[in-house]
Amino acid sequence: MSAAVLHGTRDLRVEQVPLPPPPARGEVQVHIAKVGICGSDVHYFEHGRIGDFVVEKPMILGHECSGVVAQVGEGVSHFKEGDRVAIEPGVPRLSNFASNYYMKQGRYNLCPDIFFFATPPDNGSFCSFVNHNADFCFKLPDNVSLEEGAMIEPLSTGIYAARVAPVKMGDTVVITGAGPIGLMNLLACRAAGATNILISDLVESRLEVAQQIGATATIRGGADELKAAAHEVTNGLGADVSIECAGHPSALRAAIGACRAGGTVVLIGMPPEDSAPINVNDLIVREITLRPIFRYNNTFPTGVELLSSGKVDVKPLISKRFSLAEVPQAFNYVLDNRATCVKAIVDVE
Amino acid sequence: MSAAVLHGTRDLRVEQVPLPPPPARGEVQVHIAKVGICGSDVHYFEHGRIGDFVVEKPMILGHECSGVVAQVGEGVSHFKEGDRVAIEPGVPRLSNFASNYYMKQGRYNLCPDIFFFATPPDNGSFCSFVNHNADFCFKLPDNVSLEEGAMIEPLSTGIYAARVAPVKMGDTVVITGAGPIGLMNLLACRAAGATNILISDLVESRLEVAQQIGATATIRGGADELKAAAHEVTNGLGADVSIECAGHPSALRAAIGACRAGGTVVLIGMPPEDSAPINVNDLIVREITLRPIFRYNNTFPTGVELLSSGKVDVKPLISKRFSLAEVPQAFNYVLDNRATCVKAIVDVE
Amino acid sequence: MSAAVLHGTRDLRVEQVPLPPPPARGEVQVHIAKVGICGSDVHYFEHGRIGDFVVEKPMILGHECSGVVAQVGEGVSHFKEGDRVAIEPGVPRLSNFASNYYMKQGRYNLCPDIFFFATPPDNGSFCSFVNHNADFCFKLPDNVSLEEGAMIEPLSTGIYAARVAPVKMGDTVVITGAGPIGLMNLLACRAAGATNILISDLVESRLEVAQQIGATATIRGGADELKAAAHEVTNGLGADVSIECAGHPSALRAAIGACRAGGTVVLIGMPPEDSAPINVNDLIVREITLRPIFRYNNTFPTGVELLSSGKVDVKPLISKRFSLAEVPQAFNYVLDNRATCVKAIVDVE
Amino acid sequence: MSAAVLHGTRDLRVEQVPLPPPPARGEVQVHIAKVGICGSDVHYFEHGRIGDFVVEKPMILGHECSGVVAQVGEGVSHFKEGDRVAIEPGVPRLSNFASNYYMKQGRYNLCPDIFFFATPPDNGSFCSFVNHNADFCFKLPDNVSLEEGAMIEPLSTGIYAARVAPVKMGDTVVITGAGPIGLMNLLACRAAGATNILISDLVESRLEVAQQIGATATIRGGADELKAAAHEVTNGLGADVSIECAGHPSALRAAIGACRAGGTVVLIGMPPEDSAPINVNDLIVREITLRPIFRYNNTFPTGVELLSSGKVDVKPLISKRFSLAEVPQAFNYVLDNRATCVKAIVDVE
Repeated sequence: MSAAVLHGTRDLRVEQVPLPPPPARGEVQVHIAKVGICGSDVHYFEHGRIGDFVVEKPMILGHECSGVVAQVGEGVSHFKEGDRVAIEPGVPRLSNFASNYYMKQGRYNLCPDIFFFATPPDNGSFCSFVNHNADFCFKLPDNVSLEEGAMIEPLSTGIYAARVAPVKMGDTVVITGAGPIGLMNLLACRAAGATNILISDLVESRLEVAQQIGATATIRGGADELKAAAHEVTNGLGADVSIECAGHPSALRAAIGACRAGGTVVLIGMPPEDSAPINVNDLIVREITLRPIFRYNNTFPTGVELLSSGKVDVKPLISKRFSLAEVPQAFNYVLDNRATCVKAIVDVE
Repeated sequence: MSAAVLHGTRDLRVEQVPLPPPPARGEVQVHIAKVGICGSDVHYFEHGRIGDFVVEKPMILGHECSGVVAQVGEGVSHFKEGDRVAIEPGVPRLSNFASNYYMKQGRYNLCPDIFFFATPPDNGSFCSFVNHNADFCFKLPDNVSLEEGAMIEPLSTGIYAARVAPVKMGDTVVITGAGPIGLMNLLACRAAGATNILISDLVESRLEVAQQIGATATIRGGADELKAAAHEVTNGLGADVSIECAGHPSALRAAIGACRAGGTVVLIGMPPEDSAPINVNDLIVREITLRPIFRYNNTFPTGVELLSSGKVDVKPLISKRFSLAEVPQAFNYVLDNRATCVKAIVDVE
Repeated sequence: MSAAVLHGTRDLRVEQVPLPPPPARGEVQVHIAKVGICGSDVHYFEHGRIGDFVVEKPMILGHECSGVVAQVGEGVSHFKEGDRVAIEPGVPRLSNFASNYYMKQGRYNLCPDIFFFATPPDNGSFCSFVNHNADFCFKLPDNVSLEEGAMIEPLSTGIYAARVAPVKMGDTVVITGAGPIGLMNLLACRAAGATNILISDLVESRLEVAQQIGATATIRGGADELKAAAHEVTNGLGADVSIECAGHPSALRAAIGACRAGGTVVLIGMPPEDSAPINVNDLIVREITLRPIFRYNNTFPTGVELLSSGKVDVKPLISKRFSLAEVPQAFNYVLDNRATCVKAIVDVE
Repeated sequence: MSAAVLHGTRDLRVEQVPLPPPPARGEVQVHIAKVGICGSDVHYFEHGRIGDFVVEKPMILGHECSGVVAQVGEGVSHFKEGDRVAIEPGVPRLSNFASNYYMKQGRYNLCPDIFFFATPPDNGSFCSFVNHNADFCFKLPDNVSLEEGAMIEPLSTGIYAARVAPVKMGDTVVITGAGPIGLMNLLACRAAGATNILISDLVESRLEVAQQIGATATIRGGADELKAAAHEVTNGLGADVSIECAGHPSALRAAIGACRAGGTVVLIGMPPEDSAPINVNDLIVREITLRPIFRYNNTFPTGVELLSSGKVDVKPLISKRFSLAEVPQAFNYVLDNRATCVKAIVDVE
């Protein structure tokens, strides 16, 4: 079958790789249909690594995907051939004490040993077929397209952020960064009932998209403007929740500054340097909780519901479509159009 | 000034009563504009009592109200004459150890000593002017009418139920009883992101209203039909949350039956007899929590946000309007049209 | 090997059964050392069933157990031969959608498909060897005996109750029923920092044990006495948490009555008839949550810590010891001495 | 009456000041008995300010206090002359929108307008009599001395930290900093059921006190040693909760490093410079929540319970006693003996 394999920095090749074996017990084999290109895919493409995760041998990229069940492994009762599914890319390997500890507590995203599409050394899903644990596949209802299904993965970050914050109906939320992650958070916060959603970025075109999908205010400015805007709509209290998606210390400062006393700042964006200066005394005096999140757990059923009910519409975020053969061009396109390309989707079939 | 005073069972008179004194320190005087008629008002009208609360001397009815600030008491900095406000009818009296205990914990609805409009012996707001603690008045933005403002009180029950359950985005919720309280809960659950909202009642006309305001399924049937409907949309799990608004043991049974293992049943409806038979073993084996709620706390700011943002539209629930002089007829109308009259509003001015 | 097999009502035989096969992947084979006799074991012995669970073919009883690892299956890295372990008797079978749903959320006790020692048709652990999922075995430190290790299972109910309530330091807790479950809850509540623990029962000898292990008040009386006692130590508020362990409607009424407004009543005891009359209006007016619990999850690591640290001492609850050959007599002894026998332990070796 | 008044840096004078007027409605007048010397008192003494709080006119110091009710104001029903009380030093002034917002939610410590003993410009309690809101006075049972009562204030920080973390029974807790606040946290964590409490400091004498009052391990070392020690007792997971009490960036780093994935680091210590470098990526990848706390709320009833029940013994932390006339010497003593003086108590009578 064809697959988009990363061989080295900026060396992404569409080539033939062996078909997977029949699905093992508890697995399904999925014929991949749509795969979104994520910032992390692009980061591997550009740098060959993300932090400690280094691409040391050729690796198939891609982890935001949907497809159609092609084969059903033994012991799987809730899927049949032809079922359309969204795929949750991370499956804990319950091979050690700590992985099990987190699994048994329902926080499986923290398992130290986890299979994850396109995280070295695990291959991703820019290919025709994958075998995957059936419990991490989620049936799509008829009114959710495979393209939408592939967007549940990036939407999951927003769902998880809104859940753990938590964002409640009537809340005022500040989002720093209007890239794909920030926009997905915007959609999730709206679905969770937030009535004021303020989003900041330095790039005007991104803010325009934000406005189209429901931001109540867009701020192209710094911490002071964001704080002023948040205070204006909250009687001077500040945001109930800030969600930092930009991955820059200045955005983190702005997110904290715009948050009310007793509020929560969700941390998603990873700054280029590990360390950021944080005003600890301000956090203490205003009792502002920093709640970092790593990926997500138990979000896919929610994602399916939000799309199926129409509470969330991800379609406006699809900027561009490519075929599997065009994946290398797609990556270069995304790299060259960061300001305007929200989500590029690859049609694998 | 004029006021609608209950003198005895079915003896409600619009008569002249003295104006209130100037507002005390911390109070505002509000010129009442709109007052909704609540089931509890009607219950006092019909029976002269609700449980242990007995109307022993003439009492002004009415507690779902909005108005315009007419005078500002000393020490009140956040209101000025002319401000349009919704009024939260219950104000804790911090006169004893237990009231203070609950106040300091933010659960002021549980204070054993609380002033509450139209709860004997406290007068209500079917009258031209009331003095009220400014901290329990909430400014209405320009885009929220006084009529909508008067609806925040009944909406509060729904907001509080959805918050404590909690109802989360993507949830399936079952509501038993499509009277005013059930419908308000429906609106709140939608705002909180519920994607499936199933509501049951025995009266078809009520279910039609429910459908108009967003129910995803209406069930005119018993426990079995409700459970089947809830299971159908949840892969056989059942509802995340059930909200019992009917106040009948059979509805409570249906609410529990339709709820999934590990879910929560919010109890709002008070059965005519205190005691209801509950299948304790079923609750245990399926670990279903019963979470009763009494009135609400900290809901008015949320209510203002939901109306102002358009997340909730209460206008379709207004069935009929009356003047203050017509209040006695209004009560009789409500009594005679329980199946079709959702909310009757009195224009006090 | 020898095993205590239930063949029918009151027909419990110690007989030879085949040894288990070598442990499968992910399992360990445990040489059972100590097994406690639980009320549910006795119930099967006496009635041949518990609710819908009917003993239809010979079944080995016993599920409160500890032992020594005899063989380690493939893929198990955190155990070695000779490790002393406590065994969590319930292991979810991840064979269907719903079981997985609950597992992924960390509420695996709610999985509809679960292996559980001595719950028909699954055999229990009154025998020399069992194979068990290694992730549900917990290493005992040197200072925790195998006998204590076997007590972690019944202690788990108390740990779970105190966790979900939650019981917090400084709390006043009321426990209804001073049988083994009530006493285990008492120990757990003490460990969680409760400062007043009031326990009620009709049997004086049980209350004496309760007093020895830390009850601050014992009440041999009804709802009025219990409420009065709870009010006396809480400035008239009532208990923060009540835990119903007696399984009688009158005890449930007493547990609710002694609880403060806004408090929680944990339901553990299963009444002989499914249905109990509950004063729903009282629950609502005082906003008292009923929180039923079914078995427990994630309690064994806590149990090991509590025993090892000395925060909990279960040894005073061991009333009597038997050998495996004496298991039938042991069951009859327990049946005949319900008032005085807290926990009988069988030494399997 | 006599009072210890701070006139300027290191200029603390015991002098005559006017008696307070009779207590107002809702107040009691308390004859002060015991007052502890807090680090913040000493900081004002040494520097004349703490952050934005500047001593601009003479101010009575002291806020950790207990006393005897001397007069009861109107409307106070739960106190009488002669009652022994602990005094919570902060009383919200409900004079504006934001203060009310936080009060109504039970998070009154976040009210922007709050009276607080010895926080400029509010006078403290190193004097014979104070008038105080009765709802912030707490009756001491007979078995709690006035000296212990004065310790409830510093203990409150520990109670609040353990509550919000939350510290649960069986938890492993790491505390950085074994000064008075660290030691109070140690006591509270023990009471909350923590079974491993590791505490670090650079000063051996403080660690000795920590060991005497229940630390299970004391670490005189850096982040690596602390992490290793936490991992050793948790099967390699790390601490459930870390509590940073030292107020140094290196201690914060150590507290984070010793915490397990998914755990919480409570921030109490305020670093001398507002800003500290924090490894945001590590927080994200391990999903470690930073939960700062500012003072406390609703802790005094818990504190009274913990002392009265014997769950907490604060007496070993009293290093030295002084009379009111000796307060200036007491402050110098505390300054000169930071390593060994945990808590100095002033006997005001």
